[in-house]
Amino acid sequence: MKRDVYLILREFIQNELRICEDLLLSGDYAALFKALDKLRAEARKSGLWNFTLPAEYEGHGLSYAEFAPLSEILGWSPLGHYVCNVQAPDIGNMELLLHHGTDEQQHRWLAPLASGEIRSCFAMTEPENAGSNPTLMGTKAELKNGKWIINGRKWFTTGADGAGVVIVMAVTDPDAPKHCRASMFIVSADNPGFRIIRNIPVMGDAGSGWLSHGEVEFVNCTVDESAIIGKPGDGFVLAQERLGPGRIHHGMRWIGIAERALSMTCKRALIRKISPNTVLADNDAFQSKVAESRADIEAVRALMLSTASFLDSGSMKSGRSRISLIKFLASDMLMKVLDFAIQTHGALGVTDDTILSFFYRHERGARIYDGPDEVHMMVVAREELKKYRS
Amino acid sequence: MKRDVYLILREFIQNELRICEDLLLSGDYAALFKALDKLRAEARKSGLWNFTLPAEYEGHGLSYAEFAPLSEILGWSPLGHYVCNVQAPDIGNMELLLHHGTDEQQHRWLAPLASGEIRSCFAMTEPENAGSNPTLMGTKAELKNGKWIINGRKWFTTGADGAGVVIVMAVTDPDAPKHCRASMFIVSADNPGFRIIRNIPVMGDAGSGWLSHGEVEFVNCTVDESAIIGKPGDGFVLAQERLGPGRIHHGMRWIGIAERALSMTCKRALIRKISPNTVLADNDAFQSKVAESRADIEAVRALMLSTASFLDSGSMKSGRSRISLIKFLASDMLMKVLDFAIQTHGALGVTDDTILSFFYRHERGARIYDGPDEVHMMVVAREELKKYRS
Amino acid sequence: MKRDVYLILREFIQNELRICEDLLLSGDYAALFKALDKLRAEARKSGLWNFTLPAEYEGHGLSYAEFAPLSEILGWSPLGHYVCNVQAPDIGNMELLLHHGTDEQQHRWLAPLASGEIRSCFAMTEPENAGSNPTLMGTKAELKNGKWIINGRKWFTTGADGAGVVIVMAVTDPDAPKHCRASMFIVSADNPGFRIIRNIPVMGDAGSGWLSHGEVEFVNCTVDESAIIGKPGDGFVLAQERLGPGRIHHGMRWIGIAERALSMTCKRALIRKISPNTVLADNDAFQSKVAESRADIEAVRALMLSTASFLDSGSMKSGRSRISLIKFLASDMLMKVLDFAIQTHGALGVTDDTILSFFYRHERGARIYDGPDEVHMMVVAREELKKYRS
Amino acid sequence: MKRDVYLILREFIQNELRICEDLLLSGDYAALFKALDKLRAEARKSGLWNFTLPAEYEGHGLSYAEFAPLSEILGWSPLGHYVCNVQAPDIGNMELLLHHGTDEQQHRWLAPLASGEIRSCFAMTEPENAGSNPTLMGTKAELKNGKWIINGRKWFTTGADGAGVVIVMAVTDPDAPKHCRASMFIVSADNPGFRIIRNIPVMGDAGSGWLSHGEVEFVNCTVDESAIIGKPGDGFVLAQERLGPGRIHHGMRWIGIAERALSMTCKRALIRKISPNTVLADNDAFQSKVAESRADIEAVRALMLSTASFLDSGSMKSGRSRISLIKFLASDMLMKVLDFAIQTHGALGVTDDTILSFFYRHERGARIYDGPDEVHMMVVAREELKKYRS
Repeated sequence: MKRDVYLILREFIQNELRICEDLLLSGDYAALFKALDKLRAEARKSGLWNFTLPAEYEGHGLSYAEFAPLSEILGWSPLGHYVCNVQAPDIGNMELLLHHGTDEQQHRWLAPLASGEIRSCFAMTEPENAGSNPTLMGTKAELKNGKWIINGRKWFTTGADGAGVVIVMAVTDPDAPKHCRASMFIVSADNPGFRIIRNIPVMGDAGSGWLSHGEVEFVNCTVDESAIIGKPGDGFVLAQERLGPGRIHHGMRWIGIAERALSMTCKRALIRKISPNTVLADNDAFQSKVAESRADIEAVRALMLSTASFLDSGSMKSGRSRISLIKFLASDMLMKVLDFAIQTHGALGVTDDTILSFFYRHERGARIYDGPDEVHMMVVAREELKKYRS
Repeated sequence: MKRDVYLILREFIQNELRICEDLLLSGDYAALFKALDKLRAEARKSGLWNFTLPAEYEGHGLSYAEFAPLSEILGWSPLGHYVCNVQAPDIGNMELLLHHGTDEQQHRWLAPLASGEIRSCFAMTEPENAGSNPTLMGTKAELKNGKWIINGRKWFTTGADGAGVVIVMAVTDPDAPKHCRASMFIVSADNPGFRIIRNIPVMGDAGSGWLSHGEVEFVNCTVDESAIIGKPGDGFVLAQERLGPGRIHHGMRWIGIAERALSMTCKRALIRKISPNTVLADNDAFQSKVAESRADIEAVRALMLSTASFLDSGSMKSGRSRISLIKFLASDMLMKVLDFAIQTHGALGVTDDTILSFFYRHERGARIYDGPDEVHMMVVAREELKKYRS
Repeated sequence: MKRDVYLILREFIQNELRICEDLLLSGDYAALFKALDKLRAEARKSGLWNFTLPAEYEGHGLSYAEFAPLSEILGWSPLGHYVCNVQAPDIGNMELLLHHGTDEQQHRWLAPLASGEIRSCFAMTEPENAGSNPTLMGTKAELKNGKWIINGRKWFTTGADGAGVVIVMAVTDPDAPKHCRASMFIVSADNPGFRIIRNIPVMGDAGSGWLSHGEVEFVNCTVDESAIIGKPGDGFVLAQERLGPGRIHHGMRWIGIAERALSMTCKRALIRKISPNTVLADNDAFQSKVAESRADIEAVRALMLSTASFLDSGSMKSGRSRISLIKFLASDMLMKVLDFAIQTHGALGVTDDTILSFFYRHERGARIYDGPDEVHMMVVAREELKKYRS
Repeated sequence: MKRDVYLILREFIQNELRICEDLLLSGDYAALFKALDKLRAEARKSGLWNFTLPAEYEGHGLSYAEFAPLSEILGWSPLGHYVCNVQAPDIGNMELLLHHGTDEQQHRWLAPLASGEIRSCFAMTEPENAGSNPTLMGTKAELKNGKWIINGRKWFTTGADGAGVVIVMAVTDPDAPKHCRASMFIVSADNPGFRIIRNIPVMGDAGSGWLSHGEVEFVNCTVDESAIIGKPGDGFVLAQERLGPGRIHHGMRWIGIAERALSMTCKRALIRKISPNTVLADNDAFQSKVAESRADIEAVRALMLSTASFLDSGSMKSGRSRISLIKFLASDMLMKVLDFAIQTHGALGVTDDTILSFFYRHERGARIYDGPDEVHMMVVAREELKKYRS
């Protein structure tokens, strides 16, 4: 992968994807996904595909640090990652299968995911329980006669609608030590014990397909013993491993969103008259917020890149508190930059005539998904205090 | 009006309106307005109607200070004010016609508005021009052969969809001193020169009827000379008079929203387990945000009530900077309390399973409508600096 | 007391006290207190004295709400309250003796305090224990042979240096319910068991006399049984009663400081050139901070006045959470306004050429004294959550 | 320079310097400087000296990126840099003479500065003029008969008291383009035209020697033509070159202060009981502020290091906006972390029993010196907006 991939992607995002974004904003999902399918095919043909997977899966084997700037540029559009098949939750699921799947699992599920034939989802969060605490999970899986029987309800299962396969987290040993209670299973979406209850209306929009968050149910959902990923009890460790880099991916994507919002902000301010002879960009109070936005973005990017390198060096475990740190810093930055962009656009900012309102609504979850910021702050604080405990 | 009106309204909001809110959240506007019509009829019959208008218009002649606590309690629901016929923009339009309308204008328009037969809208903001600066208005009205001919485009004309009458602001003398250039006109919605271009999609939702914001157009829209409110050039002064109390009404409504959000926050935190033995409400960091929310609300309410009394004493003009002050303080408070409520609700907070996401989306405009906060801050600052200018 | 007292005080503060402030800033305490003694004599003669005490103690019997605006204007100078004999801790001690002292205690101590002959101090906070938790107090008093024997160490005993009398809080029954463990005693400063260890250097300055904070020690300090205020175990209740209004007094004083700082800020900005043709006051970013400061001050004042009236109505107990609320709101406001004033003054702001640096240093304690803000936030939060506990 | 220099310095700071800090806090400057002289001699002998100067000046030729971590660790103490002869303003003056001094200037002034024989000061800021705007400088130098005659007043000339040499900035051509008006001159401190008016009392303390800020005056101060640094009109460019890296040095020092403050905060919280069974460190609200502090520090350090490398690559000019960005981010971080540390220490935090109050007072200037944050924000904003100007 060369430097010009960055430029190609930038071009791609700024030109091709704008039309799709209009369809997104108008809510015409059928037309949108049709258009996206075409772009995905093009992207795949051009090798703009599966950046982090190895060549055998049509990828480029990029490290986190190498993928980071691409993820940022893809983040300029809500559709960027999807077009290159590096969208959550599929990218995380593919990496999981790559590193921990059996040959059979890889053959059956990783291959069609990597080719873009099917999509996947990841069922972890539960409506009734705080997701950040693994001891509070209600979904159970019991081994009976060589079969795992899964029961429970999940929600915010992104992209469940239309997915071919589900990875689900369930408690397999409630009496084990806290972090060894859960396991992960692969469930085919056509398993009769699996059901999508609804696409959850989120911020006024239930979405569709990949652009939806499902509430799903497992009722005596029966799978073979071989459907487990790793060993029983590995669930929490695998989830951590999956989520850590995921937070970097999200973070870089958020920087992309913030950069786009800030660029829209500046452009708007340069033409928005506030008096016959001055534009908004001349206003010092406006300028000081531009400076804050720029500073916040730069700080998050610097930390994000150094953490990506850190993860690449194999220090996932000791990097946990670093990832927590940038998670809350990045989501906070995103919210502030978006809010400033909307404010700068005035009445236009709350309409769907720009992409800002979409980001404002659908990224509000940034401070909640993948562990609420408050939980990540506790992780950082405890790590800090530990230094001084005797 | 007695103290128990407060309790009756509270009851009303908490019971009757909840069903309507479900229809609102599901986007079934037809069913919603049908249900609301019934409630409006009930409210009217019970005298919970037109609180600020005089008895001849079925009202109670409440002062701003008397209406303030009612407006707060109505604000608990996005539908509260509508049910009692005190919703924006109608309440403002009715007060305007009451104080400045001719007998004929009152007969033709105020009467059916007060009875709830028709609705009105107020066309002031323009897509291409900063609304906060009266010298930047593009809509013009010319007097030709005893007729005013209006041309221009407006947006965020709340409730244009289905309104029977439009009050529109237009420049009538571009060469007059800055604040004497514009005038206000009453236009029947069936005037062939008036057209609704679209209900603007706002935060993912174009809404319907009273719950919509129109983009509208005046093309050679011709009205009689008598369609003017007040005298030519009065537009700006009338607008100020209309918007000042309007900001108090909004502010009290925002306090209602904030109180509801905070109560949801506390209730949720008291049942949300964060570990087997503790709930979120036990968390000190959560508590410190509860304290901040309570403090912010109390501060805004104290100022709001004292400003309402001030306006009641007839000091509209000298109260301008006070109103600006609480406008930005109140909208900022609202955003913070809502954001905290959503964060506390976790994933649930971004869904449409609670009212929070509706408020989050549709009140984001609070910091923009009726003059962006930044402009109100300038008003306050200039007033402050004036004290020390020699 | 009439409206013009306000004007007289204002004049007094702005003219007479400025010379004293110069002495204060230069650290010449001997000259300062000499000059202040003269002013105190004048103030006493003019009846600008003991505003909240009854006429028999040369006062005016003002309620909290009546005293509040005077306290604000006195607060413009760090020396204002002292000149009128309404400075902490003496005002609190005098009110305590007035309401809870025996005839003998009033005769011996209240009379000379009211006449300004002697000063007093209040020994409550301890170096080793969190003052906000009454169960963590280390100072003990034991009753032996009809004498109380007090042992313990206190600090931040304001004005201990030169005080004639000490009111000290000590645990008398460690096994009683939490809030009934402590009692208050009056100790003559010449008691051989009482010793001032040092005037604590605070923010680079150990001060002197009333303008100092003592670290003091009680070693087998023996007093008569009659030295107790109220009954054994009353200490905590008396302290609450003393501190509640005290926080209102502080709060109004802080508003005075903030008003002075903001006025200095505006004046400076109007003359400070930032380019050949513009002054700092023309800068929009500066203006938006002026607006914030004004808004913060107005919000705190509105709440402070309504709480003062509330306390006047005799609702001390139910007012506790209100007082906590304005305490943290007010101290936060003060810090922000002071910080902005210093920033606006640039390099001059950190020098002792203005009063700002004095306030910045000596009011930093505002968020700590009388209970750290964090503790007051918990009080407010618990009150709020209680509404929803079943 | 090896990794262990870092450890040696750390040891040095934490052990040797503590005694000196006690002298500093007690204000015994005579004893302090005597003790420091001894430590300086030791440091010089051990090669902990002049890190950024070349070997011929007893230095190590460290790049900015190499020096940065050392500057951080030295920053743990207000005296750290001074002991190693890398204190401002001397380090900046020495680098200036190194890169732009003539042989004679280097021989006469750089040599004794590098050996620590004499100290220097830098006279730029003026009491009457905003320092950030070079067009507003009042000090003038005129060339008459082969001599420069300097007239003007400066302040915040750090370390003027006892300095052997002064570098002064003066306007030499008021009609030149804005950035070519001023020049820099070297003035021996015993020049009869140079006078120290006073050590300015800053935050209650006028300091002494290197630890002071002078107000100084040039009255017909006459120097040879050779006293100019560079060419006439170079002043502004030289100042920029001097201040850019200076801001990195300051920034790393501020990180050192913040790290020390945060470590004190954590240690204190781990032993401070807030109830019989819990310490402050158990409090979630406290923890969330620890997390914020850690995040702020990491963000600033990541940016600081990347900017140091950028400067090392020779990109001073294009790095200007980056330096501005971290300047305001870093000083803001410092203030927040210090404030939190003081708040955590409660009453102890405002005393001089810890170093915190010293930092709180003497680093408040961080947001003002070297250009107020507001000016740096404008630099960043203009750079950002420039991208979109056509």
